[in-house]
Amino acid sequence: MAEKTVSFRWLAVVTAILLELLSDVKATSRSWADESRIVMPGITSFTQKGISGTKWAVLIAGSSGYGNYRHQADVCHAYQLLRKGGLKEENIVVFMYDDIANSFENPRPGVIINNPQGSDVYHGVPKDYTGANLTVDNFYAVIRGDRAAIQGGSGKVVDSGPDDYIFIFYSDHGGPGVLGMPTTPNIYANDFVDVLKEKHAAGTYKEMVVYLEACESGSIFEGLLPEGLNIYATTASNAEESSWGTYCPGMYPPPPPEFMTCLGDLYSVAWMEDSEVHNLNRETLEDQYLSVKTRTSNHNTYSIGSHVMQYGDTKFKTHQLSAYLGFDPANENVTRPHALQILQMNKLFLEPTESVGINQRDADLLHLWQKYHRAAEGSQEKMRIGKEIFDVIGYRIHLDDSMQLIGKLLFGNDVGPIILKAVRPAGKPLVDDWGCLKRMVRTYESQCGLLTQYGMKHMRALANICNAGVDTDKMASVAAKACVRSSFPREAWAPIQAGFSA
Amino acid sequence: MAEKTVSFRWLAVVTAILLELLSDVKATSRSWADESRIVMPGITSFTQKGISGTKWAVLIAGSSGYGNYRHQADVCHAYQLLRKGGLKEENIVVFMYDDIANSFENPRPGVIINNPQGSDVYHGVPKDYTGANLTVDNFYAVIRGDRAAIQGGSGKVVDSGPDDYIFIFYSDHGGPGVLGMPTTPNIYANDFVDVLKEKHAAGTYKEMVVYLEACESGSIFEGLLPEGLNIYATTASNAEESSWGTYCPGMYPPPPPEFMTCLGDLYSVAWMEDSEVHNLNRETLEDQYLSVKTRTSNHNTYSIGSHVMQYGDTKFKTHQLSAYLGFDPANENVTRPHALQILQMNKLFLEPTESVGINQRDADLLHLWQKYHRAAEGSQEKMRIGKEIFDVIGYRIHLDDSMQLIGKLLFGNDVGPIILKAVRPAGKPLVDDWGCLKRMVRTYESQCGLLTQYGMKHMRALANICNAGVDTDKMASVAAKACVRSSFPREAWAPIQAGFSA
Repeated sequence: MAEKTVSFRWLAVVTAILLELLSDVKATSRSWADESRIVMPGITSFTQKGISGTKWAVLIAGSSGYGNYRHQADVCHAYQLLRKGGLKEENIVVFMYDDIANSFENPRPGVIINNPQGSDVYHGVPKDYTGANLTVDNFYAVIRGDRAAIQGGSGKVVDSGPDDYIFIFYSDHGGPGVLGMPTTPNIYANDFVDVLKEKHAAGTYKEMVVYLEACESGSIFEGLLPEGLNIYATTASNAEESSWGTYCPGMYPPPPPEFMTCLGDLYSVAWMEDSEVHNLNRETLEDQYLSVKTRTSNHNTYSIGSHVMQYGDTKFKTHQLSAYLGFDPANENVTRPHALQILQMNKLFLEPTESVGINQRDADLLHLWQKYHRAAEGSQEKMRIGKEIFDVIGYRIHLDDSMQLIGKLLFGNDVGPIILKAVRPAGKPLVDDWGCLKRMVRTYESQCGLLTQYGMKHMRALANICNAGVDTDKMASVAAKACVRSSFPREAWAPIQAGFSA
Repeated sequence: MAEKTVSFRWLAVVTAILLELLSDVKATSRSWADESRIVMPGITSFTQKGISGTKWAVLIAGSSGYGNYRHQADVCHAYQLLRKGGLKEENIVVFMYDDIANSFENPRPGVIINNPQGSDVYHGVPKDYTGANLTVDNFYAVIRGDRAAIQGGSGKVVDSGPDDYIFIFYSDHGGPGVLGMPTTPNIYANDFVDVLKEKHAAGTYKEMVVYLEACESGSIFEGLLPEGLNIYATTASNAEESSWGTYCPGMYPPPPPEFMTCLGDLYSVAWMEDSEVHNLNRETLEDQYLSVKTRTSNHNTYSIGSHVMQYGDTKFKTHQLSAYLGFDPANENVTRPHALQILQMNKLFLEPTESVGINQRDADLLHLWQKYHRAAEGSQEKMRIGKEIFDVIGYRIHLDDSMQLIGKLLFGNDVGPIILKAVRPAGKPLVDDWGCLKRMVRTYESQCGLLTQYGMKHMRALANICNAGVDTDKMASVAAKACVRSSFPREAWAPIQAGFSA
């Protein structure tokens, strides 16, 4: 039995390597032959020829709290990757709450890792915008290059010119039309895209690439990001699904045993680990999109994971990644990844596929569950964490139930739930009147409590209430009825404490 | 990096095998040389010489519900093991609720496994006492051999004579002084030991071995099981700690990916997997005790796991296991386990030791968590399971908090919690007046709701209330105060529905 298992494993390893080598050959022949460009090793490609401007990057983790370790880990990792690619510290603006590395919960004080075997990615990361300075206004001002509008932080902005390349990477929780922030309010899709349009109108970049990791992150660009802004974007998920954490306790591959939290996000880790083993002067945006899409969808099975999407100027997809992410000379001679690297990346082939990740909204509970499970039986600590889980799940039930009830009160018991869930056709944005959506969020939150990271999933319901023409007075009276008996087990969930999320 | 990891793993494998072989040699030299018996392969030992009577067994899983898969899996596995050892179906009495194999939650309908690589152990297991017939009265009547007292079921009893050998194996949840049952009431330690004494007084066995897997299972015999009854017992845990489930999702080794529940219990699996790879004509009770103790305590580190205990006539420890478990001729020539079997059993050496098991009381939540985690985001199913977790944790908090409050109301805020937790010295039973304990349980349950599997942990608190001389009237008024606002999220937790557990 054991002998058979071992043989099967090695057969699977070999098959995985062969498959990867084959797909590598195919990918190479597609991107270089189909595009009628034949590039030999050492020959100057698009990237070297075309780039004279500066490479800029904005990296932002939208969460705080040790249970969200993975988002700041992604961002730190991205910083190290870009530095290896030759980008300068002065051209990389980092937004991270910075409460992970020195958290009392961190088993490796002062260190953040983004892979079970990974080394520290925290050291050297500039603290441009941390804590209370991690605001949506600062984020927009940084992209615009508007130093005067910055409040707090290092004051670093994307002070770019017309020949420059900009890379933006966001990692966190989200919801339809919204990206979470550790402060209020959140990032709204229309505002974010407006900032990108302003940046384009100002003529202060040549090309921009945006990578977004969040639940329903497709909704940020769906029907909103036009072609012609010279922006190519991919998102971890489409407009109506969760994105996924990875390297989580109890999954494969697991983090080191002392970690009770996920180390990374599936899409984020996929693009970074792909970048690290390729020659970015040869790999194109599309090559990476296909690689990341495969890994994020569990090898296109979607048995776990999400649909990676492309938006904006997808004609850029033939451009080399080095234009945006830089080029690590160590990968100069890489035509394909070393077999051992493939082996390591393809461990996933060898194990049950159900366990490679967890959706973002469950990852927080996983962290609490791990803490509960490891706390000593009968201890005060165990009782405290038990109560925390009880509060968190109870508040989630409150959010779900109250939104359901509001839908039924507004539209009737039968139709209500259907209207709240309705998804508009591809190409149409979540909502036509974004002002209405924000007012609906504030109205809901004033009666029922803050939506929180989990409740961002209900943004579509609130958008559909706007789309159905409900006014905020009507919503206020209905929400008041639905939440009349609500009490918030934590003050942090009362909008009077933290401010509205919109 | 990958190469190093691989080499390390193989080094660890080889080391593990060498260690195991060494310990096997040591164990052999101890049990055979120290006891001044030199037994060569093929030479008749104690077992063959001494046994003329019949071997009987009583196997009992004390739980129901798919989340408790592991207990019925243990019992089915034990049945198969005893049959391979030559015991006859007519001499093995099986108590199992029998709601696992054909549960809608079972990914392998009609099959039960007790090891990730294990084959079916359910087929052929006799359904002597299932469902509502799995009662404490039937359990006692079966041991006594009192066919007239049996209600329902197959009527099979331990109809043993003075030369016979009896093996009793119980697996389930427990608490101080109590073993759980899927029906009310539970098994109380004093009653169980009284039945064993009666059996001894009747002169209807020569020797008896009892193996108990339950939380605080040491409390069943501590200060209660005297020497001289010709009974040797081991328990999964001492009188004040949890016992552990194993082969659980997210732990190592995990069950097959489709299983959202633990497949076995750490102590139970340890004695059975040990029995399967040894020549039971050569292995003694003590050999197995040491082997099981090592595995159940994570190689005597106790970083996870529990203290396996011995009670009763420990002088029997030099007797061969085959007297009780029979002898599988396939192991006739086994002097030590085959290297590959060791390799398989010692996988635990190669992986983080924190993840080989989970305490019994967390295992139920793990099952719910796994179901929640795997249910589709946004589905009704996910909301339903979320509410179930909320109810279960909420009720646990209610049990913990109400018991704390009762302690404080009875003995004062400072001393109350200390009195409830006090552990009597080794050799003293949990409580002197078992009638008082049962009355306290009923009094608590009538005011505050059923203790449930989880709440059995509070049996010590109730015992200490008795030991402190509190009468039930006082307890009733205090419990009424502590639980005045209690409502039970499920009717099943109201004693009026299910009957008291005592």
